[in-house]
Amino acid sequence: MSFDAPAVIKTKRDGGRLTDAEIDWVIDAYTRGRVAEEQMAALLMAIFLRGMDYRETVRWTTAMVSSGDRLDLRGLRRAGHPLATVDKHSTGGVGDKITLTVVPVVAACGAAVPQAAGRGLGHTGGTLDKLESIAGFTAHLPNEHVRQQLCTVGAAIFAAGQLAPADAKLYALRDITGTVESLPLIASSVMSKKLAEGAGALVLDVKVGSGALIKSVAQCRELAHTMTRLGAAHGLRTRALLTDMNRPLGGAAGNAVEVAEALEVLAGGGPPDVVELTLRLAAEMLELAGVDDRDPAQSLRDGTAMDRFRALVTAQGGDLSAPLPIGACSETVTAARGGTMGDIDAMAIGLTVWRLGAGRSRPGERVQPGAGIRIHRRPGEPVAAGERLFTLYTDTPERFPAAMSALDGGWRVVDTPPRPQPLILDRMTS
Amino acid sequence: MSFDAPAVIKTKRDGGRLTDAEIDWVIDAYTRGRVAEEQMAALLMAIFLRGMDYRETVRWTTAMVSSGDRLDLRGLRRAGHPLATVDKHSTGGVGDKITLTVVPVVAACGAAVPQAAGRGLGHTGGTLDKLESIAGFTAHLPNEHVRQQLCTVGAAIFAAGQLAPADAKLYALRDITGTVESLPLIASSVMSKKLAEGAGALVLDVKVGSGALIKSVAQCRELAHTMTRLGAAHGLRTRALLTDMNRPLGGAAGNAVEVAEALEVLAGGGPPDVVELTLRLAAEMLELAGVDDRDPAQSLRDGTAMDRFRALVTAQGGDLSAPLPIGACSETVTAARGGTMGDIDAMAIGLTVWRLGAGRSRPGERVQPGAGIRIHRRPGEPVAAGERLFTLYTDTPERFPAAMSALDGGWRVVDTPPRPQPLILDRMTS
Repeated sequence: MSFDAPAVIKTKRDGGRLTDAEIDWVIDAYTRGRVAEEQMAALLMAIFLRGMDYRETVRWTTAMVSSGDRLDLRGLRRAGHPLATVDKHSTGGVGDKITLTVVPVVAACGAAVPQAAGRGLGHTGGTLDKLESIAGFTAHLPNEHVRQQLCTVGAAIFAAGQLAPADAKLYALRDITGTVESLPLIASSVMSKKLAEGAGALVLDVKVGSGALIKSVAQCRELAHTMTRLGAAHGLRTRALLTDMNRPLGGAAGNAVEVAEALEVLAGGGPPDVVELTLRLAAEMLELAGVDDRDPAQSLRDGTAMDRFRALVTAQGGDLSAPLPIGACSETVTAARGGTMGDIDAMAIGLTVWRLGAGRSRPGERVQPGAGIRIHRRPGEPVAAGERLFTLYTDTPERFPAAMSALDGGWRVVDTPPRPQPLILDRMTS
Repeated sequence: MSFDAPAVIKTKRDGGRLTDAEIDWVIDAYTRGRVAEEQMAALLMAIFLRGMDYRETVRWTTAMVSSGDRLDLRGLRRAGHPLATVDKHSTGGVGDKITLTVVPVVAACGAAVPQAAGRGLGHTGGTLDKLESIAGFTAHLPNEHVRQQLCTVGAAIFAAGQLAPADAKLYALRDITGTVESLPLIASSVMSKKLAEGAGALVLDVKVGSGALIKSVAQCRELAHTMTRLGAAHGLRTRALLTDMNRPLGGAAGNAVEVAEALEVLAGGGPPDVVELTLRLAAEMLELAGVDDRDPAQSLRDGTAMDRFRALVTAQGGDLSAPLPIGACSETVTAARGGTMGDIDAMAIGLTVWRLGAGRSRPGERVQPGAGIRIHRRPGEPVAAGERLFTLYTDTPERFPAAMSALDGGWRVVDTPPRPQPLILDRMTS
């Protein structure tokens, strides 16, 4: 069936609901270039301001899944046994390297993780940007390679490529037209990629707070609810955790610095919040996959998770024996007085890292693998006068003034330790 | 000053007001191609749904005027006397050939009319399309030619060209993105072209009804109020008439058929509604221009208005001695029974004429000069069974079924004559 693009736009503009046939047509025609970018931009703004109801959001998601390939992961086996598949997705945060730790933990515990990951945009980092700071690592895997690697390694982290290409095109458009922060558009974007990926179960890490896309708990809950329902409507077992993103995760944000911190966690150490979230998400994933023979924490202690990470990197061409890149220039921030580190604002850290060159301002831009920040004192830790609090890295020192000014005001040394904040705020099932 | 396009879009999306500097920047950057079509499309939809206040609308208009040339018509003289300039603009209707009659009437009465006119889009006709059905007529006049012709002929009807090029670009974008019917966007579009045209005074013919862009009298009043204020804010004496567009104007709609009807009026005959609106608008224009030495009705009776029209056409290369084109194929609609012609719906006639090939579906498309409709019995006139009521013309007879179906239901023969409807509903000054 064929429609007239301006008529479809006007329906949504005037607060109407799009029919299934209109949604199928507009997504397909846009993917094929028959609906112009400017027409889709007008429609996205109308959706942003008028909303989409649940039926429309389900159909929008289905249409995006249908715009490209869908991985077929049925019948995967390892050592003669059927292999359960499960994935997790984070809506994006600052210092969020959890994919790098949770994927090998879950693989070490016996489930397979097919993770179609993205690149960063703005102040939130991208898993592929982080992994590509490892010499030789490639995220571009043919579908057959993904299937193979799931059987041999138990995990693959790869570029979405031909999965839901409509979403990739729409996301780039939303980014430049001020239409990113729409709940139905976020939910359908996430779920279309994850449905096309073909995993049997999905755990969502829905971030809320200053450094997240969504700042309010109520909106975040609504987003999580919509995504878990979207999963269920498409036959995907889906669960969501709501987690805090007012503070950055761990003590490093950037690209290679986050890989280094993930390696610390996989070696049995690392910051307690990164360890806590890794283990909690792994437990949810394993439970949802129906795999409960091993303890995730044990895999960090006995090195089996680290083994899985090394195997994954090697299978994707990466060389962990080469040193991780680090920005050629650094600046430190020291404490003017003693006391306790107060709250650190995730958004301030995210902007700092972006200004240092670790993030991109438009899709396709290159990022610096060695740019990033080290946070030496985390909220609640004691601070001595003159002590180093932050180290900033970049290859382009002319970026320091903007980065320093982004960091400024995002932290302070206080007399009374800040109240401990729960990391996991809620858990939702479909 | 430079801004970030997504940030400007988000301000309007969230219901904020754009600053003068943001408006100046976005119009200039869009005209130069530095703000992308898709970004402007998102901004237009946000403006459509969130509105613009009066200050924003004034600035948006000023910025569009500044995007191109502005005619300088100061100091025009004829036979040694200073020449007052005045123009009129119609917001677009069906069968609205009033420009073709009122311009020579006003010129015959001693004021000069610089009319930057447009082409039709959709169901409403364009003055230039109608005039270009005259062999040899050109609307592309250099600015100096316009000045000269105003002194010699007293009128010029020409393509806007480099006047307010931002408006031309925006209008084409609004057309394909469902963002046409926004009062601040309509008001700024009209007024930017008219301000750039440089006339000393302006009379607006704001159409309301089924065949107009705006269907409600309240909205139409608001549009007229905004436009007259915009004129005053820029030092242009502006007045508006609100006129009915539930019925088509006169007894012909299309291109050459409307020129033929305009010639009937200029010869002292023609349909009474076309004559009434011509004389009323001419009187308003002459009063606003401060020229009151001649009676407009007299110029129709004594042939001086016809002289001005012939002089204008000749000065612009047209040959009125060549026969006007007429569609190679025709179909008639006859009365199944006798009675009185009831109301005729302007929108139905507009769609019929569009389907016949007189209008375009996208900017730049060719139109048929000979396509159109003749309305033989107008509302309230007696009808005999079997009598011809409508004749449809086109060069492409495969268009007849769609045209007939557009006409169907837009008229009927009744027993009780319809109530006479006032043509002029209101008059507003700034």
